[in-house]
Amino acid sequence: MTRWLDDQELEAWMRLVAVVELLPGVLESQLKRDSDLTHFEYVALAVLSEAPERRLRMSALGAATNATLPRLSHVVSRLEDRGLVRRVPCPADRRATNAELTDAGWALLVEAAPGHVEQVRTAVLDLLTPAQVRQLSEIGAAVLGGLDPDGARQAAMPRR
Amino acid sequence: MTRWLDDQELEAWMRLVAVVELLPGVLESQLKRDSDLTHFEYVALAVLSEAPERRLRMSALGAATNATLPRLSHVVSRLEDRGLVRRVPCPADRRATNAELTDAGWALLVEAAPGHVEQVRTAVLDLLTPAQVRQLSEIGAAVLGGLDPDGARQAAMPRR
Repeated sequence: MTRWLDDQELEAWMRLVAVVELLPGVLESQLKRDSDLTHFEYVALAVLSEAPERRLRMSALGAATNATLPRLSHVVSRLEDRGLVRRVPCPADRRATNAELTDAGWALLVEAAPGHVEQVRTAVLDLLTPAQVRQLSEIGAAVLGGLDPDGARQAAMPRR
Repeated sequence: MTRWLDDQELEAWMRLVAVVELLPGVLESQLKRDSDLTHFEYVALAVLSEAPERRLRMSALGAATNATLPRLSHVVSRLEDRGLVRRVPCPADRRATNAELTDAGWALLVEAAPGHVEQVRTAVLDLLTPAQVRQLSEIGAAVLGGLDPDGARQAAMPRR
């Protein structure tokens, strides 16, 4: 017996789907234009910037950015070609590889962050009341409890 | 002067980004497995099913599904090859083309809808309280006011 959506559920769902479809393009176009970064590349650099010594195992970076290793490996290669990241063998485990943010990568992130944060505010946060920001956070936590039960995703935005 | 995110904003934003990244894969894998449809194909069929005479101009279908015409045209061709949609010249405007849901397309949608609705409940709606569903709808409306000011997006889920 299918539990069809009632009017309120349908409205909420349609709006969420629209946001999920439209938001990535908005984030991506600002970052591409101003910093020649995809949103995924930005997130990967930001996650590295928050890690101790700006360095993470590739597997941990993949988990934190929700990327498969092949996809992550491809992106890290592109970032390496631009001198923003380097791959170094993990001293603690010879079979593992670390990705490390270079000084150039850090500098690009520092340059890119204000414009990205501005876009995040314009596209989402400044459109919400403080109460709605809290609600969004709670709703996000509830949904991620199902989508990402291990909580593998981590901070993806440099604080300042 | 950059207005950096405070703790509450950062938490809400990180969770939203994670949902935006993880949700499409969850929707897509259920639909591909059970009905051999991408989420976008499902939405296109659902939008047509809600239109008068199950028929829409390609331009209106593109607006309702947030797709460029080239992308939409590609998808409609695939659906046409499977006999789920047909293209017919618009009687009112000879330069325009309508996309029309076929009986087979309707039948596939009717078959696919319960599993998709179940997935929508499992992945999102059943994890929220009724108050959170209302909050999500309000938050979605606020964000779409910025992302989609013309309100081009329409219903994308058959009611029953």
